[in-house]
Amino acid sequence: MTVNAERFLEDLHTLRSFGAAGVGKGVVRPAYSEADIAARRWLAGRMQEAGLRVQFDPVGNLFGLAEGPSLLMGSHSDSQPEGGWLDGALGVIAALEIARSSDRPVSVVSFQDEEGRFGVTTGSAIWSGHLPLAEADRLTDHAGVPFAAARAAMTDLAGGFVDPARFSGFVEMHIEQGPTLDTEGGQIGVVTDIVGIRDMVITFAGQQNHAGTTPMHLRRDAFQALAAFNAQINDRFRNVVTPRTVWTIGHVSLHPNASSIVPGRVSFSMQWRDGDTERLARMEEIIRQTAAEVAEARGMALSYGPMLGLEPVAMDGRLRMALEQGAESVAPGRWRTMPSGALHDATNVSRLMPVAMLFVPSIGGISHDFAEDTDEADLVAGLRVLDHAVAALGRVNE
Amino acid sequence: MTVNAERFLEDLHTLRSFGAAGVGKGVVRPAYSEADIAARRWLAGRMQEAGLRVQFDPVGNLFGLAEGPSLLMGSHSDSQPEGGWLDGALGVIAALEIARSSDRPVSVVSFQDEEGRFGVTTGSAIWSGHLPLAEADRLTDHAGVPFAAARAAMTDLAGGFVDPARFSGFVEMHIEQGPTLDTEGGQIGVVTDIVGIRDMVITFAGQQNHAGTTPMHLRRDAFQALAAFNAQINDRFRNVVTPRTVWTIGHVSLHPNASSIVPGRVSFSMQWRDGDTERLARMEEIIRQTAAEVAEARGMALSYGPMLGLEPVAMDGRLRMALEQGAESVAPGRWRTMPSGALHDATNVSRLMPVAMLFVPSIGGISHDFAEDTDEADLVAGLRVLDHAVAALGRVNE
Repeated sequence: MTVNAERFLEDLHTLRSFGAAGVGKGVVRPAYSEADIAARRWLAGRMQEAGLRVQFDPVGNLFGLAEGPSLLMGSHSDSQPEGGWLDGALGVIAALEIARSSDRPVSVVSFQDEEGRFGVTTGSAIWSGHLPLAEADRLTDHAGVPFAAARAAMTDLAGGFVDPARFSGFVEMHIEQGPTLDTEGGQIGVVTDIVGIRDMVITFAGQQNHAGTTPMHLRRDAFQALAAFNAQINDRFRNVVTPRTVWTIGHVSLHPNASSIVPGRVSFSMQWRDGDTERLARMEEIIRQTAAEVAEARGMALSYGPMLGLEPVAMDGRLRMALEQGAESVAPGRWRTMPSGALHDATNVSRLMPVAMLFVPSIGGISHDFAEDTDEADLVAGLRVLDHAVAALGRVNE
Repeated sequence: MTVNAERFLEDLHTLRSFGAAGVGKGVVRPAYSEADIAARRWLAGRMQEAGLRVQFDPVGNLFGLAEGPSLLMGSHSDSQPEGGWLDGALGVIAALEIARSSDRPVSVVSFQDEEGRFGVTTGSAIWSGHLPLAEADRLTDHAGVPFAAARAAMTDLAGGFVDPARFSGFVEMHIEQGPTLDTEGGQIGVVTDIVGIRDMVITFAGQQNHAGTTPMHLRRDAFQALAAFNAQINDRFRNVVTPRTVWTIGHVSLHPNASSIVPGRVSFSMQWRDGDTERLARMEEIIRQTAAEVAEARGMALSYGPMLGLEPVAMDGRLRMALEQGAESVAPGRWRTMPSGALHDATNVSRLMPVAMLFVPSIGGISHDFAEDTDEADLVAGLRVLDHAVAALGRVNE
């Protein structure tokens, strides 16, 4: 049996109808919302029709299980508070289409709360053992709702956790959520690795003062310290980073944040991402040394919040090669290898089994927005690559 | 009669007892609070004892009027939400002591809400005609209380507005609220001018994006635009400013202000102060040109809020010379001329009559803080300079 592109696109549009909102193809389907649970019930029905055994686990991760050992494919079907129709949904419906058309055993998963209403990739983090369930239950969303209360809405569906040993690997198809493929006119990206992340809050404390009576040379202005730090790391990173490295100061909190007062304190986020653990560590050294120098030179007290870190994850060579062969068959000259700058469920699943990922373009690089979209020809191309890869993996196994 | 330093200090400490709070000599006596109104009632009694005719005006400015034409002296007796014992209070009690000891006609004023619960130097702004009463009545404090409701608490005291034509000039003594005198070991500062202020909000709007998937060279990061703007104006101001010029970015609002998102928009305050209107205008040119260049180079939309401006105010030559002669008599070698970087009631009063100001040191340059203080010997030196000046002005008039 071959994949049915029409059925695949139809199911993708049907999934969008759960929580369809906003302009264009927008979706509002956050984890555990009515729309999310209704979508999962519908998905479970489609899985059953495909001959898969449905199992919800205690946190709402939805599995459609093939009999015996199988390859796991999928992604997530919850959305951002204001999201698009493809982020996560694409990988789930593509997996469903492969499972029902392939003659190899393929299981399907839709992880819960990948978008992090309660943290980061919550459902797969729990399943992979990275986040203990008791700890997760104490997490709350922005409205103060505890995770335990949210997941209780799915109690009637919940079974046990699925044993990961039944899967030989995990393949996740996803939109790129960045501009690389779209800019180059590429159709397929085979992911080499998911970059690692470091994230911490840095605080400079100087001296709050009257903005009229304090001469410039006597100021210990926390904003000026931040500006100096920013300029220096931009300069010092130059010979350390690659074109794929990114770093961001995305959050700034100035105190007392008044136009007539020399700011006495600033706390800001410093986040950096790269595929190489050693480069991440070298950047951390530069950040800490630069912050210390700026603090010393400007009479600032310096402090750091805890450093949050996720290690880079390399994709499995065998799974990745199958995807590359598929890409070469389906989109010759229009595919490339590339790292994933965003986190995905595959990061967590890599703790349990070999993983690989496939990207299709995001128009204008836009995601986490109602305007998120991809040409349907590219969606189908991605599906066909998965189909080829699964067939190739089957042949190797036989 | 000569000034009585003991009585002066005693009254200053008594005034502190209204709203005494916090560590050290802290005071909590915001405009129209119970402590503020009680302090004004007490002050009115002291004025009467000094032979002055008490008149509250409709907004709570308290005058102690000498008979016939007189020199007006004073400041304000309201405090910051967390203030010190001298900011404003010193000028009022010093004026009281001069009025009761001098044989020249001296009237005393304590303006209301100099600290700006409802704006900036509210009481003197209304009295000087700069702020229409009907407009002021619509202002609200941070808790949403309208000015009209706050001043109603003083209705039983209120008379009409005092005719400014009865005053030949205004002299205000104040703590410096900056570090200049304290750093140099100076005892007296004779103010040359109160600097002008320009203040506006600038907004850069770029493109909000995923901090993991957006390569550095494709970002339109609003925080980086702010940092570039800041570095360039610091550089370009170099050949324009004097050692007395100050400029401050004290408020920064980043959107969406999240560590994993490239900031799409920043609004920030740009405030600059100088005694020279032309320099203020030259700085504005540099600011606008730099912001436009940064916006152009980084693909940002640029917008400005309204520019708030207060013109520099030069002190009256005759009044100032009397203060300088007094300073030379009382503190030879320990006085200097200097601009005022802070706003004062004298800025408003200058619309009505000649004004002059006298500073005494602030220990550590600290003000608007419970820790605000001045050596009592310096307070008395300031009082004696006023005494000399009033006597000298009397001699000239005779």
